[in-house]
Amino acid sequence: MIVKMSRRATPEEVDAVEEKLHGWGYKTGKMIGEEITLIGVYGDISQLPNGEVQEMAGVEGLIPISRAYKRVAQKGGPGNLIHQTVHIGKVEVGGDDLAVIAGPCSVESEAQIMEAARFVKEAGAKALRGGVVKYRSSPYSGWEGIGSSSEEALRNGLKLIVKAGREFGLPTVVEVLDQNDVSIYEDMGVDCLQVGEPNSKNQALLNRLRETPLPVIHKRGNSLDIEAYLLWVERIMAGGKENVILCERGIVSSNKYTRNTLDLGGIAAFHYQLSCLPVAVDASHGTGIRDLVHPMTLAGIMAGASVILVETHPNPLIAKSDGFQGLFPEQFARLVAACQQVWELRQRIEPLYTPSAAWEQTYEARVNADKKRFFAGV
Amino acid sequence: MIVKMSRRATPEEVDAVEEKLHGWGYKTGKMIGEEITLIGVYGDISQLPNGEVQEMAGVEGLIPISRAYKRVAQKGGPGNLIHQTVHIGKVEVGGDDLAVIAGPCSVESEAQIMEAARFVKEAGAKALRGGVVKYRSSPYSGWEGIGSSSEEALRNGLKLIVKAGREFGLPTVVEVLDQNDVSIYEDMGVDCLQVGEPNSKNQALLNRLRETPLPVIHKRGNSLDIEAYLLWVERIMAGGKENVILCERGIVSSNKYTRNTLDLGGIAAFHYQLSCLPVAVDASHGTGIRDLVHPMTLAGIMAGASVILVETHPNPLIAKSDGFQGLFPEQFARLVAACQQVWELRQRIEPLYTPSAAWEQTYEARVNADKKRFFAGV
Amino acid sequence: MIVKMSRRATPEEVDAVEEKLHGWGYKTGKMIGEEITLIGVYGDISQLPNGEVQEMAGVEGLIPISRAYKRVAQKGGPGNLIHQTVHIGKVEVGGDDLAVIAGPCSVESEAQIMEAARFVKEAGAKALRGGVVKYRSSPYSGWEGIGSSSEEALRNGLKLIVKAGREFGLPTVVEVLDQNDVSIYEDMGVDCLQVGEPNSKNQALLNRLRETPLPVIHKRGNSLDIEAYLLWVERIMAGGKENVILCERGIVSSNKYTRNTLDLGGIAAFHYQLSCLPVAVDASHGTGIRDLVHPMTLAGIMAGASVILVETHPNPLIAKSDGFQGLFPEQFARLVAACQQVWELRQRIEPLYTPSAAWEQTYEARVNADKKRFFAGV
Amino acid sequence: MIVKMSRRATPEEVDAVEEKLHGWGYKTGKMIGEEITLIGVYGDISQLPNGEVQEMAGVEGLIPISRAYKRVAQKGGPGNLIHQTVHIGKVEVGGDDLAVIAGPCSVESEAQIMEAARFVKEAGAKALRGGVVKYRSSPYSGWEGIGSSSEEALRNGLKLIVKAGREFGLPTVVEVLDQNDVSIYEDMGVDCLQVGEPNSKNQALLNRLRETPLPVIHKRGNSLDIEAYLLWVERIMAGGKENVILCERGIVSSNKYTRNTLDLGGIAAFHYQLSCLPVAVDASHGTGIRDLVHPMTLAGIMAGASVILVETHPNPLIAKSDGFQGLFPEQFARLVAACQQVWELRQRIEPLYTPSAAWEQTYEARVNADKKRFFAGV
Repeated sequence: MIVKMSRRATPEEVDAVEEKLHGWGYKTGKMIGEEITLIGVYGDISQLPNGEVQEMAGVEGLIPISRAYKRVAQKGGPGNLIHQTVHIGKVEVGGDDLAVIAGPCSVESEAQIMEAARFVKEAGAKALRGGVVKYRSSPYSGWEGIGSSSEEALRNGLKLIVKAGREFGLPTVVEVLDQNDVSIYEDMGVDCLQVGEPNSKNQALLNRLRETPLPVIHKRGNSLDIEAYLLWVERIMAGGKENVILCERGIVSSNKYTRNTLDLGGIAAFHYQLSCLPVAVDASHGTGIRDLVHPMTLAGIMAGASVILVETHPNPLIAKSDGFQGLFPEQFARLVAACQQVWELRQRIEPLYTPSAAWEQTYEARVNADKKRFFAGV
Repeated sequence: MIVKMSRRATPEEVDAVEEKLHGWGYKTGKMIGEEITLIGVYGDISQLPNGEVQEMAGVEGLIPISRAYKRVAQKGGPGNLIHQTVHIGKVEVGGDDLAVIAGPCSVESEAQIMEAARFVKEAGAKALRGGVVKYRSSPYSGWEGIGSSSEEALRNGLKLIVKAGREFGLPTVVEVLDQNDVSIYEDMGVDCLQVGEPNSKNQALLNRLRETPLPVIHKRGNSLDIEAYLLWVERIMAGGKENVILCERGIVSSNKYTRNTLDLGGIAAFHYQLSCLPVAVDASHGTGIRDLVHPMTLAGIMAGASVILVETHPNPLIAKSDGFQGLFPEQFARLVAACQQVWELRQRIEPLYTPSAAWEQTYEARVNADKKRFFAGV
Repeated sequence: MIVKMSRRATPEEVDAVEEKLHGWGYKTGKMIGEEITLIGVYGDISQLPNGEVQEMAGVEGLIPISRAYKRVAQKGGPGNLIHQTVHIGKVEVGGDDLAVIAGPCSVESEAQIMEAARFVKEAGAKALRGGVVKYRSSPYSGWEGIGSSSEEALRNGLKLIVKAGREFGLPTVVEVLDQNDVSIYEDMGVDCLQVGEPNSKNQALLNRLRETPLPVIHKRGNSLDIEAYLLWVERIMAGGKENVILCERGIVSSNKYTRNTLDLGGIAAFHYQLSCLPVAVDASHGTGIRDLVHPMTLAGIMAGASVILVETHPNPLIAKSDGFQGLFPEQFARLVAACQQVWELRQRIEPLYTPSAAWEQTYEARVNADKKRFFAGV
Repeated sequence: MIVKMSRRATPEEVDAVEEKLHGWGYKTGKMIGEEITLIGVYGDISQLPNGEVQEMAGVEGLIPISRAYKRVAQKGGPGNLIHQTVHIGKVEVGGDDLAVIAGPCSVESEAQIMEAARFVKEAGAKALRGGVVKYRSSPYSGWEGIGSSSEEALRNGLKLIVKAGREFGLPTVVEVLDQNDVSIYEDMGVDCLQVGEPNSKNQALLNRLRETPLPVIHKRGNSLDIEAYLLWVERIMAGGKENVILCERGIVSSNKYTRNTLDLGGIAAFHYQLSCLPVAVDASHGTGIRDLVHPMTLAGIMAGASVILVETHPNPLIAKSDGFQGLFPEQFARLVAACQQVWELRQRIEPLYTPSAAWEQTYEARVNADKKRFFAGV
């Protein structure tokens, strides 16, 4: 963080700001220009009371430099990454095993979700997903999920998926749209909550989720920069909550062919640079095209994902929502087999990934000699 | 809407779908291809029960053609536009007069909001805005609004702005972030609710707003296509609510210089083509640069806005949030004077705007002759 | 510009860099951190030989701070803007009068361009536009412009538009796609060259245009940030050329309704903050919808444009390219009349635009007192 | 393609259009609506003379439906994809082997390019890349490539890289910015030409490349939709040229953390759905962050790339351009080893990828029964 003093700030005001910062335990450094003085603040500035600094005499503004997300952040350095695991029911996520979370876009009936649970389990999925209340871009779509009409309907819908999950030994992941429903989800035995893309910046919902003991999958909003997203995730964790999972599901761009632009560069940045949290890839929403789910899921693992979210349906041709991106059961089974192999390879070849930090010292030591070697006489 | 029948649909299934559609009062037309039959559905398809059609035997999917937002939509045709007005307190919006809604980003203290109300009234504003609970991209910003800590704080914060508004004869516009707070806002005497950009697709909040008698300003989400946004607005109105105001405040793009990309083309499309609702322009958030608010607000009026949202503060240099985009009081006063003149000019020159429909018949009648005239011997 | 020294840089290396900079006439300032030393470089860094600095011992990299476009840049300060004019033929652009440049997308035949010249002149246009070689997204469109097939065809096509322009006293503006054609355009008497959006970053073409005495309209690339675009424009001017006109014609975003997103905020930034050059608005390409050209052109003037580019055709229903966005002649005539009034109003109310610089000192002087006034006891 | 007849078209005019189409060998189908008649055109419409149709009496416009890129297009169907190979020198690309093309951003000196060629060859690269004339966003960067100042400099620069390539048995890939230089590149023995991102829509350059016997790598423009890009690629191939390679190197979005947004979904679409051409991934430009090149290159292979473009330098800390994204030699060597394993795995598990077409018939046959099974009594 840099504190920018105003052009009219007196030396006394500059001193007062530095003293205040020292009082909070920060080290500071000054750059005194002809017109403006800047005060650099060193240390964990995520806890700096910005508002209080800004109200001080002589202060013009604050310029953020380092990362303001502390709990989400990667604690280790390059070559020494530290990743934490999260549990969904008894399934460990972000650890040694890949976790495939699959199921239909919507829970449509008991028969449908039972059948879905059966075949995703058989294929090797670790958890069952299915929406009970659905976002719909149109209010007239005629289908907002089996649980959308009343609290009773919501409870009944959740009961169906939890029953299916338990029948087949799969913990359940269900999206929650309304902060008032969180306790109902907890009460009905759902194992993991999901924040959907449209709610990615819903401050009231994110604040409410600070208090749930359940793990949360927080999907990246489709207009959020990579780091801006992490700040919204930090909101859930700000009070100490730890069991959160990142998810990339596509951002907007000028593309028209795919439904969204799946930003695997974001996944690589999260996993290899910015965050300690497990990262999921959702290629179903990320492409919106059934036949691209397979290659893009595999690519997502290679980019750094350890969790796979994928939509599949006993018969996607009759799905009530998003059927065009749902996999046929056989496709899904083969995808899981492929994922497993890609995951194993990634673990095997990870020693080949050497971050620059490992080489920087060596090459920096050579810089001046190399400048001579390559540019002499040019 | 076009119903796409599957390649394997039988003639009987095609007939059954058409009969069902006729039963609901729709006319249909068929295009029988070598492989696929398409059924065109004519009429107001916003009321078509899509789900029921999709479940029918032989149906592969639905392809939307015409607009699915019915209440938001423009009811007249080109050259015969019909615009409805909305009341914020006693102030009519979307009618003969321009409505400037102004105030600080946040209500910070009684002294500050009183002073703000005084000077915006004096400058000619019609309503007072000010946030009591604020979105913050970082959970550690140390300031989430004067009303963020408890229900009591919320009530006290709302009391301050309502008091300031009443003192100076200004109805008040306040953003609501949580559906649970709507009745508190109503109770405390706020005159208009605002849905912020981060909540533009918050389905639970939008559903709740169907029931408030207060007018709602719904800000366009920064990743929403022009028409996709209108479908989210339609959600508030789906049950019959009519007093809703559109608002353009910037979308994401590859721009880095301005905070957002203010899409005035969206305003022109809303006002001159797609919607009967009043349209607001918010150049403060739309540019994020104090010195661009003036030209972009004026441009917004020329594009079709009849409501101006603008941030101003008794001293923006000490604003607790978004001070960099808040106008100095004198700047604001001059902006209002300029807006008024631009508004008057727009009304005077609107007869010069002639939509193509006025000329299409004439030119279509000439098409074949003109083809000869221009292309003969080329 | 800030020079970032490497962690291993010796004090001698730091000194050597500062000395070199001083030798070139720059002042410097240092910020010595625990790990890294930064050297601030003050002065006109657009002429700094970056490469030479980067090759010096101990230098890690350069961090740009101030604007690298020098000739494009606004030379005055806020409240004291300096704008330069450009001549297209005898028409002065960027001065007291609005300049409407109009005509068909393509020159299609002699009869068509003659008729176009006649009616745009009558309506009040100052210059005639028309493409002779056209970009086509598909190579099979069957129409790449009347001049696309050979040098002879090019000369004949240019002859038609120049003849039409001269007949009606209109200088001509024609897009050039190939650096090899520049001298042909000069030779045939075209009055102004246009760089189209697809060539906005075509380095070879831009370099070639440094040498033409003709004025150049350079259209902003649809993926370019506001300031990144100015750097590409600077390329044409780097050798001393001055007669260049900026043009905003739409950028990409997630919008689907309009063909492009017309970034009027860019126009406001160019005219009121960043550049001394005249700015054109092209709402025809910027919206791609005939009925939005009128409001968006007027909005463009209010945002800061002094040049209007607009497509119109004797009968747009039969235009060989982009007919959907071309105005009917009567629409065009009325648009010109409206533009004239908006332009006059803008000039009349410009004194109401007061940039922040005019108020900053006053409000900064009050900052500490206002902090007390508003935050006391909060 | 659909021909939209105007509302005033006579039956005779409709007939005339159909006859004309039949004369060219197309089949047609009509949908006669209450207001408008549409004529569907079946067959390879990439050869349809649009302009001629549009000039016919009664025709309002053409609505494209199927793909207009014919040579670029995938010729097989799902489950039966046909991919063609391209030769760079003696290296086959797009076939059984992965092709790594690597080298520095710029050729800086003979010593540097020799050293680069040595270590990329040793690591397993198949071809050598290096720029001799460089795009620079600023005209004052002081470095536009070793060959930028004159034809002689260009020839000398090309000589250096060709010499280095031959010394180590590597064919060379060099970017060409100016259509006038193509024959010089051919003359100097370059093995493959590259079209850079800024020239992706440079019509004059693309037209010129139709005539070179050399293979061309055409990089996708950063604002181009997936299919819009393929139409620009088609331009090079329109006359019969076949040896073209696609390349994804990042598009613009609202991301700020990565330099570009690498659209691997585009790669999956090209390889598995849309095109018969080999696809390259350039994660160096696609991320702009040295430490993300490794995971994103591997992800790119999994998404469908068979060609790897990667920047590496004997000492990236002193590279004259783009050093921040260039790999250290040791990093590069390990990346090649990892790529090889990922490539082998992809080939091994490709049988697990089953496109939907394989299942659609089966599931369509079940649709009506499944509708009963899942929705009965819901």
